[in-house]
Order: sequence, then structure tokens, then C-alpha cells
Amino acid sequence: MNNSDMRDSIRAVMWQDNSLVLLDQRQLPQKESYITLTRCDDVAQAISDMVVRGAPAIGIAAAYGYVLALQENYSAQPRDWQGAMQPAILKLLDSRPTAVNLKWAVNRMQNRLEGLAEDPCPVALEEANAIAREDFESNITMGQYGADYIGHSRGVLTHCNTGSLATGGFGTALGVIRTLAGRGALESVYAAETRPWLQGSRLTAWELQKDNIPCTLITDSAAAALMQAGQVDWVIIGADRVAANGDVANKIGSYSHAVNARFHDIKFMVVAPLSTIDLTTPTGNNIEIEDRDSSELTSIFGVSITPDSINTYNPVFDITPAELVTALVTEQGIIEAPNAARIRAFLGPD
Amino acid sequence: MNNSDMRDSIRAVMWQDNSLVLLDQRQLPQKESYITLTRCDDVAQAISDMVVRGAPAIGIAAAYGYVLALQENYSAQPRDWQGAMQPAILKLLDSRPTAVNLKWAVNRMQNRLEGLAEDPCPVALEEANAIAREDFESNITMGQYGADYIGHSRGVLTHCNTGSLATGGFGTALGVIRTLAGRGALESVYAAETRPWLQGSRLTAWELQKDNIPCTLITDSAAAALMQAGQVDWVIIGADRVAANGDVANKIGSYSHAVNARFHDIKFMVVAPLSTIDLTTPTGNNIEIEDRDSSELTSIFGVSITPDSINTYNPVFDITPAELVTALVTEQGIIEAPNAARIRAFLGPD
Repeated sequence: MNNSDMRDSIRAVMWQDNSLVLLDQRQLPQKESYITLTRCDDVAQAISDMVVRGAPAIGIAAAYGYVLALQENYSAQPRDWQGAMQPAILKLLDSRPTAVNLKWAVNRMQNRLEGLAEDPCPVALEEANAIAREDFESNITMGQYGADYIGHSRGVLTHCNTGSLATGGFGTALGVIRTLAGRGALESVYAAETRPWLQGSRLTAWELQKDNIPCTLITDSAAAALMQAGQVDWVIIGADRVAANGDVANKIGSYSHAVNARFHDIKFMVVAPLSTIDLTTPTGNNIEIEDRDSSELTSIFGVSITPDSINTYNPVFDITPAELVTALVTEQGIIEAPNAARIRAFLGPD
Repeated sequence: MNNSDMRDSIRAVMWQDNSLVLLDQRQLPQKESYITLTRCDDVAQAISDMVVRGAPAIGIAAAYGYVLALQENYSAQPRDWQGAMQPAILKLLDSRPTAVNLKWAVNRMQNRLEGLAEDPCPVALEEANAIAREDFESNITMGQYGADYIGHSRGVLTHCNTGSLATGGFGTALGVIRTLAGRGALESVYAAETRPWLQGSRLTAWELQKDNIPCTLITDSAAAALMQAGQVDWVIIGADRVAANGDVANKIGSYSHAVNARFHDIKFMVVAPLSTIDLTTPTGNNIEIEDRDSSELTSIFGVSITPDSINTYNPVFDITPAELVTALVTEQGIIEAPNAARIRAFLGPD
């Protein structure tokens, strides 16, 4: 990846000195620190612990995790490296259930190496690099498609973090916002803080500040009042998985924004690379929603904010039905009012 | 107020030894501590700082604040105590703009003392005690009306804190929930955490735990997913002000719940004593919405959760249009599908 291509300064997932280097997003915005991983098991743990998060970034990290697993196992078992690395790959696949990019990246790595007679390690690294590079390039393209479609916006509301921190760089929904801002076509950006993990407060606010794009932070539940006041004409979000019928799994709260957007006649854009569309998932009902630990709700940075032993319900994704989506932006173009037939037609025959 | 009447154990506003004693709600649930106030200015400050919060509790605290102002000024200026106490009363009225109960309580105190020849201090204290007692009694009555109306519920979602901590005892919306729970007519209670001040996590969870009513805490933005999953058949909230046309000002996030409830065909109940209905406010557009400090969004219990100097928008109330309200419960009965005509008819001639 050529650094001169970069239109933003942050890189969350990097391959350096034969190791995977991750910006530790749990520490942001208080501390910008990096951790270096040399084992696939540690990559799985880092994904599970949200050192790295965001569907595309998880996919890229998983691809490099695959490289590490291969390197560990190929030298020890050059004839059955595929069998030997299975436990590590299964753990990787199991690290987070909702984002499909993880599975997609591992499948792509496996397909690339299938039937390879030579040492697979250099080929695998090349493929992982390609996944990262293509994700970045897709984001640039999606940014342009999305910004062209919107034209000019009085105010955009975004949820969670979908920027450089969540991807191979530039961002999906935040890529569209960056592109609009770069064109001077965007009056205001509102970032919802995104409870419980506060990706909006901690990550999106930090990224946009680094890029000198003014943004205003709101609580998630202030979005409706903002819409009622006419301050927002687009909601733009990313996706962790898009089902074959266009239903969208994304960060908890996305669905509430979609319902409120519909009620206020505000447009709703989902920006996701093709790797996020999963034709093997028929509808949103078939998507596993990850429940995370109650501590995400009961404490913040280690400070307790509830009574002890309170019950919680902490699903960290929700499903927005396709009928609430105005436009699904991919790197190959835009699917308006997505549904099963339009997505099938758009993707064409296999 | 007879303590044997109490159906819950918490009292947030008390008159003891000629002083106002407030449970410091900023410290909950970590610490149950009380502060004692002997000056009206300090009551205004305590309201402004949210030592005490919740529209009815603010009204009661203001009534006692009035008593303190009177006691301070009557002995010094027995002939012009009304003029002398004006600055303190104006500060009190200015302490929070949205809840109308504050103004209502001060007006009621002033009306009671008007033209009084004798020492007004004992009469004022009697009136403040009556405001507190009547609020508690209203809550018991509203609890019964609301619970009768609902009958049985699979799951109730509530927002903010509307319990003993927010009132003279028992609670408005939480009073209905307490009554339903007492009748065994309620399967689940979901409390939204209520960002930014976390009244749900810190106060409602604490109150319900004290009363052994099981509740499940969710992020505000998980409410839509909960509704989509069919887990909730009623949203029950309180109000800081109800306009003459039935529009409801309440804690930020209430409106989002109302929109989501309508989308999912779920009923929406507002529980508020008559002191909350303000016929001098024609519609929700005429209600001043308080914007509070950005620190409520950028830190929690002193821990910073955003980059420095980020812009925020922190309106702490929103307006739910009357057409989204299924039923408005008062101590004199229920107004279904409230609007200006029905509220006028219900209240009768002045």
C-alpha cells in the first residue's frame, strides 16, 4: 500500500516486521498505543476483546491472523499445514459472530492457497496485503459514489465508528462523510456517542478531530430530537453484515435511527463493501447477534455506574430491515431501495 | 406524612429540624448520602446541580425552598417579606427551565400566603408539607389508574427515573410499574440507562433493586431492537411538562421511544400529576428545552471519555407530540389520546 495514497493519517491494522500491529482501540482517545502480535490465537483474542473492531478491519486483521497461523504451522508441518492450523483458524472464526467480513477474509485466504504446491507463506502475505489494499481502495470509491448520490447535505448523522479505525483506511460511512466534507458539500456532522462502547465519543470524534472535520457529539437518543428539529437530512452508517434480502446488521442503535429517519422522512444510507454482503444469509433473522458482557453497561473505564448485580441485556448489534434503507453503497455502485431481487441483479451471476 | 403510608423505603426530599434534607442523587448508586440545606439560594443551586431532580421532586424541593426564603426574610423584614424574598424566589424559579412543577409549586405557595395577616411561616410550612403529601398520594392513585388501564403486561420499558427519587414518593411512571408488579401483572421491566446522566442505570435500577422488583438494564438505543423482538407492550414515562395540547416534554430519549413505539404498534403511557399540565403553554414548541453542560457527555464520574474540546449538543429534554401518546394518566383519571379539546374537557372550567 502506497502511503502517498492515504487521505487520512490513521492506520488501525498494520503488518510490520512479520508481525501484526494493532492500534489498541480500547485505550482511545486517552492513549494512542499499539500492540504487536505474532500468533494467530492472540489475533483472535484481540478481535474478541475489541483491540480491533469494525467489520472491514476485523476482516483484514483476520487475514493477517491467517498468515501468522500459516507461518507457525507450515515450518513445523510442511505437508499438513492445513490440518495443523485448523484449531487456530476455528478460534479466529469464532472470535466475533456478527460481522461476516471475518469469515469472508478467511475463506478468501483459503481459496487463494488451495492446491498450491509452493511455500504458501509469501502468497498468503500477498493476499492479506491485497485484502487490506482493496478495502482501502473500495472505501475511496464508495466515498465518491456516496457523496455523488447525496450531492449536498445540511446535516449528516452517523453512528458507531466506520472510519480508518474500522477499516483498511478512510472508512465506509465515514468515507462518504470525509468525501462530502472534502468537497465542501456538508454543513454539519453529528456523531452519536454509541453506547455501550462509545465508539462515537471515543473513536469517531477522535478521527474527525484529527482530520479537522468539525463534528458535534450527541447522545444516541438525542438523534430523534435532532431530526425533529430539521438538522439532519441523511443518516449514514456502515454494516457488519448485509443479508441477501438487504437487511442490515449493524451496531446497536442503527435500527432506532432508521425508524426515526423513516418517521421524519430522512434518508438512510448504508455504506459497505461487497465483502459485507452475505448471500448465504437469507434475511436479518438468520444473523447471529452478539450479546456482550454486562460490564459494558455497568461500568465505563472501570468506574461502576450501576448497583451491583443488576440484570442487563446487551445485544451489540441490531437488524435494520431493508425497507428502511434508502441506498446501499458498495464499491461497484449503489443499490437503491435494496431488496433480494435488486441485490441479486446488481451482483449478477456467480 | 404518615410513614406507615409509604409503600417504598426511599425518600429523596425531607423536611427535618427546620431544614431541607436532600438525598444527593449525584452520588448514587455508589453512595447514599444526604445534604442539609437551610437557605433558599442553596436549594436553587441544588436543583440546578441535580442533587435533586425529577419534576415533582423539584416542585416539592422548591416549596420547601420557599419556606426557607420566607423564614430568612420574615424575621428581618416582617412588613415587606414578600419584596425581600423576591431575589431568592427568582433564583429558585430560574434553577431549571423545563419542568413546570417548580413554577407551579412557587405559585401555589404565593397564592396560599396572599393577603395573610398573621405570621406566614407556619402556614407556608403547612402548605409545603401538603404539596409533598398530595404528590405522594397522587402517585398512589395514578399507580392504580395506570395499572387498571394496562391490566397485564408482558414487558414494560421505562426511561429516566420517575420513582421515589423523582417525586414525593412511590413515583409516577414507576408508580404504575410498582403497582403492576405488586399485582403480579407484569412479566418484565426494562430500564433504559438514560444518557447522559444515567438516571436509569444509577437511580431506577437502584430503586427497583431496593424494592425487589427485577429489572433489566438496556442502552437507550437497544429499545428499538427490544420492541422489534416483541419483548415490550408498553412504554411508560413521566413528564416534566405537558402542554395544553398534550405535547409532552420529558427526558431526552423519550421522543425516540415514542416514535419507535408507534412504528412497532406498542402503547405509550405518560404518567404525570395535574401539577405537570401547564395550560399556559399552548404546545410543545413553546417549552424551553434545557441544554446542559458538555461535561455530561464528555466524562462520566470524572473520567474523560472523549477527545478534548469536542463540540457537543446536549439537550436534556425532548418533545413527544401528543399524537404519539396512548394515554395520559393523572390523579383524577386518564385522558386517552390526549389533545387540546380532551384535556380542556377533562380539566373542566377553571
